[in-house]
Amino acid sequence: MKNEIKIFSPATVANVACGFDVLGFCLDSVGDEMVIRKIDKKGIYITKIEGGFDLPYETELNVAGVSALAMYDAAKPNCGFEIEINKKIKPGSGIGSSAASAVGSVYGMNELLGRPYSKTQLTEFAIKGEAIASKCEHADNLAPALFGGFTLVKSISPIQILEIPSPDDLYATIIHPQIEVKTSEARAILPKEVSLTNAITQWANFGSLIHALHTSDYDLIQKSLHDVIVEPYRSQLIPHYNEVKTAALNAGALGAGISGSGPSIFTLSKGIESAKKVADSIKNVYSKTGIAFDIHISKINTQGVKKI
Amino acid sequence: MKNEIKIFSPATVANVACGFDVLGFCLDSVGDEMVIRKIDKKGIYITKIEGGFDLPYETELNVAGVSALAMYDAAKPNCGFEIEINKKIKPGSGIGSSAASAVGSVYGMNELLGRPYSKTQLTEFAIKGEAIASKCEHADNLAPALFGGFTLVKSISPIQILEIPSPDDLYATIIHPQIEVKTSEARAILPKEVSLTNAITQWANFGSLIHALHTSDYDLIQKSLHDVIVEPYRSQLIPHYNEVKTAALNAGALGAGISGSGPSIFTLSKGIESAKKVADSIKNVYSKTGIAFDIHISKINTQGVKKI
Repeated sequence: MKNEIKIFSPATVANVACGFDVLGFCLDSVGDEMVIRKIDKKGIYITKIEGGFDLPYETELNVAGVSALAMYDAAKPNCGFEIEINKKIKPGSGIGSSAASAVGSVYGMNELLGRPYSKTQLTEFAIKGEAIASKCEHADNLAPALFGGFTLVKSISPIQILEIPSPDDLYATIIHPQIEVKTSEARAILPKEVSLTNAITQWANFGSLIHALHTSDYDLIQKSLHDVIVEPYRSQLIPHYNEVKTAALNAGALGAGISGSGPSIFTLSKGIESAKKVADSIKNVYSKTGIAFDIHISKINTQGVKKI
Repeated sequence: MKNEIKIFSPATVANVACGFDVLGFCLDSVGDEMVIRKIDKKGIYITKIEGGFDLPYETELNVAGVSALAMYDAAKPNCGFEIEINKKIKPGSGIGSSAASAVGSVYGMNELLGRPYSKTQLTEFAIKGEAIASKCEHADNLAPALFGGFTLVKSISPIQILEIPSPDDLYATIIHPQIEVKTSEARAILPKEVSLTNAITQWANFGSLIHALHTSDYDLIQKSLHDVIVEPYRSQLIPHYNEVKTAALNAGALGAGISGSGPSIFTLSKGIESAKKVADSIKNVYSKTGIAFDIHISKINTQGVKKI
């Protein structure tokens, strides 16, 4: 058995429009690279962090360290692990930076131990790491990072994750405006109550979206990718949100929404050419704002975290 | 071309648990029988009503007549139609009695005219008939009666109906307690606002249910068939609702809910044997109440309205 594994742990989009709090998908063009190494000395050690972000080396304070510890305590292996993180997903970008770290360590350890755990079990460990970053236990980004494709987190207690099919020609274009949206503010802005009428519209759209993904019906994806509940509130926290969305739709995007709790905005398109046009249109909007930004174009990654 | 057609127009279940207001399914063991006859004299005439219910012969007051008129005005055929109705679905039972009438006349006329209209177009005509019975335009029962199987009414303006696959071994057991639930009361009892938390639970369950129907995952159907929004209110209007539901679940039903706005209660089961056991368990509960009732056991009818 190998003693070292290098992995790619992908960025992900959670809160996919009408699938707020339950639906996510996985990207393939951006993700963290990590090395997990089996060592004789017991324990979990973060030995290298690259990427230029100020992340802690203390295992109990590091997202990848905490999820690794959760698995380590359960598995009780006769060895220890070193973790190296090359952080390529900017923390706070809204595309699952902490989830990628949390997933990478447990995925790598599981491979090195001969896969004693299922992906659902790995999610349980990774949730512990995710919780120290996002202050609550959720699997919205962990699930797509581990399983790939589109995932529906039906419940987290017990953890039940459904793998929803991804149409072959579906691409995401994502803009990350380099501003901070405080998660606490994004949570506080949500209403506690919503109208029954809007709730029905939301689940009609969500059911339609799940059907559309099963049937590769791009037209129906377009008709279903609406969020009448959360977007009206949270979009206020993202500068030029409506302009970006309008530009993307005019350029042919199937739909757009807030990625996670922002500030990133995701769009979905049929085909790489369309996704590139959408990128150009968004770039055109944001170039005029004076706010720094990154744009990612990515096919839906149906594999999830993987060995490289 | 034939001048007369005899049809079976099936009963249906709307408001399927977490799919409140959008998801319905079609039954095959109970439905109206109708004869539609092409005649030289222009106009729509209700010429026979059997079944023992007090339904109007005046075309403009009869559900089947009004939907027929809507189609007749659009098609402007060089003939007229007689409609005979053998009403086998009790009005007010909550299993789509008016929808069956509304669908039957337009389906039959469409067949006799050589199918100029799609099922979606027939839904538009049938909505006019349904509206005089239920005082609002909706397609919750029309869609499954016309298309068969499970249908998701994504929107009614414009009409967009999605056909969701039905697992082969899925059966419904339905009890119709012979009491009246006023639709106005069933509407008035609903809250205008619901908690965001419950709304999220509902769409998680609904998305899961759509996925489960696509994948014939009976276990997931069971885990998804919950309604946290409407059932707590409307179940109060149906005597012994909770006892019926508990008995059905204990007898092996995958789930249970209010059919339409009641008073009928539907349950779903895997296999005919299970559906029969569920019927026995429900019968056992209701036999003790002194309230008259009917019980129907039916495979999911994937065809919908048909020639017989």
